[in-house]
Amino acid sequence: MSKTNSLTTNIKFIIEGEEEVGSPNLATFVKSHKDLLKADVILISDTAMISLDNPSMDVGVRGLSYIEVEVTGPNRDLHSGVYGGAVANPITILAKMIASLHDENNHITIPGFYDDVVEATAAERKLMAEAPFDLEEFKKDLGVREVWGEKGYTSNERTGIRPTLELNGIWGGYTGEGAKTVLPSKAFAKISCRLVPDQDSHIITDLLINHLKKIAPPYIDIKAALHHGGEPYMTPIDSKGYLAAAKAIETTFGKKPIPVRGGGSIPICSLFEKELGVKIIFMGFGLDSDNLHSPNEKFDIANYYKGIETIPYFHKYFSEG
Amino acid sequence: MSKTNSLTTNIKFIIEGEEEVGSPNLATFVKSHKDLLKADVILISDTAMISLDNPSMDVGVRGLSYIEVEVTGPNRDLHSGVYGGAVANPITILAKMIASLHDENNHITIPGFYDDVVEATAAERKLMAEAPFDLEEFKKDLGVREVWGEKGYTSNERTGIRPTLELNGIWGGYTGEGAKTVLPSKAFAKISCRLVPDQDSHIITDLLINHLKKIAPPYIDIKAALHHGGEPYMTPIDSKGYLAAAKAIETTFGKKPIPVRGGGSIPICSLFEKELGVKIIFMGFGLDSDNLHSPNEKFDIANYYKGIETIPYFHKYFSEG
Repeated sequence: MSKTNSLTTNIKFIIEGEEEVGSPNLATFVKSHKDLLKADVILISDTAMISLDNPSMDVGVRGLSYIEVEVTGPNRDLHSGVYGGAVANPITILAKMIASLHDENNHITIPGFYDDVVEATAAERKLMAEAPFDLEEFKKDLGVREVWGEKGYTSNERTGIRPTLELNGIWGGYTGEGAKTVLPSKAFAKISCRLVPDQDSHIITDLLINHLKKIAPPYIDIKAALHHGGEPYMTPIDSKGYLAAAKAIETTFGKKPIPVRGGGSIPICSLFEKELGVKIIFMGFGLDSDNLHSPNEKFDIANYYKGIETIPYFHKYFSEG
Repeated sequence: MSKTNSLTTNIKFIIEGEEEVGSPNLATFVKSHKDLLKADVILISDTAMISLDNPSMDVGVRGLSYIEVEVTGPNRDLHSGVYGGAVANPITILAKMIASLHDENNHITIPGFYDDVVEATAAERKLMAEAPFDLEEFKKDLGVREVWGEKGYTSNERTGIRPTLELNGIWGGYTGEGAKTVLPSKAFAKISCRLVPDQDSHIITDLLINHLKKIAPPYIDIKAALHHGGEPYMTPIDSKGYLAAAKAIETTFGKKPIPVRGGGSIPICSLFEKELGVKIIFMGFGLDSDNLHSPNEKFDIANYYKGIETIPYFHKYFSEG
């Protein structure tokens, strides 16, 4: 750094607290404050790296389509003895519907779901395969005997270049301690899809909701509605911003960062690019093992200091670039 | 009744408050108080009739096997973006397991499940078909467009002479308001089977638990355990007790009661018969539409008075029989 420790760039911070609920108000703000937000590049640090020994930079994040489904059988909770066997149980029906969403190869069965997926090139898949990944360590960390996923793809590909459909929540009937012999009126599920280029979250949401309505049998009622969505986003690895960030990481970590596709979603990216006309650079210092969205979420102090050390170099190299 | 209004029989009341949780302590009490409980007949009023216009008496109740299942995927809740698609989601897997428990004809798929079922005779099925039942009224009452159930059986047969498997509860992941992008560690379900003669609840519980463990895929862990069970019970329609109860109903309702098979379970019946050596008579005055185990459970005052009016005749006719 320069001896004066003075920054060679101007910085604008944008801080908002609604990211985990889909940033419902940010678009309005961004659209009406384009001058205020005018910038040459946008740096987002809400991503992870493989490890401090294997620094990496996300070159893309997945999009999201998050919906909630409500299945109604009888118009009230029933005694499961008096009515059991003679009227559709919404839990059973919802389970059958959910079960049908992945085939025996764990491909998603919704017609048209993969239509807009840009297949990763052989070259990109080869590069991904070279990124450090220990399957045994992955299984051990998660406490599973076997991994699961779409046939024909590696674990890294499954979270990086492929779209997914996950159940985020399910509930219905009696869920307390002990037993209650109820045949419930309703069952619910929260379902979200992660999307990859060039899937469009509005199209996928419609496909998903319409598919669920189509496969719903006539002896139940179904409601399905969007919680929130976001578009997938990719950033080029030859932009001035990416090169500055990669050089900053190389300076402080002593290694070039590996470009990887992140599995999460940052819906504001496509909004920023569209409204402000600049590319996003992802330079995050967390780890996947930080228990994101999980009990005991953490961020190691070592990573925190490494971030403090690295980010000023981004500004230096960007202004020099 | 006699002018003195004095009872012609002695009465012993047994009142216990644990029926809905499987009466875990009653067996011990009954076994150690056989002399105290010695009786000629046992009258249970925890059953329903078709309607005040169509009085009926249960001639059997179904048995019960009630279990809880816990499916564990990863050892902690995960971020559904970072890990989604690469590790088994316990909700998805539990849904697939539940979905597989009924085939396309809604037969239960557990091997051996039906082995001990005594098929109802053509004569009994004919008699059942003659009992007043309005399918359109049934659908309207439950608010469903179509009924559901095992192919080859009527709605009344499905709740009377056939065993069932129902989901009483399911939960896992995020179930609160809004959205959370979690891939949960665990998913749970409460599952109960209603049993008919000569199914044995211990055998069925073992079949059910072992089947779930067998179909559980290797990328999840499963636990399954019994909440409680009870045996199916049938009472003959030519016993002194049944004839006395039927005559009592005929006296106050002006119609012979229709013998029907009840769908619910009263696990103490087989215990009473085994330990005390006497038959159970079911003479209940509720209605299926009383919203049993449901919000706004009720018992009509008219039915209550009809019970007060009828039961003394049972004692009269039983003592005369």
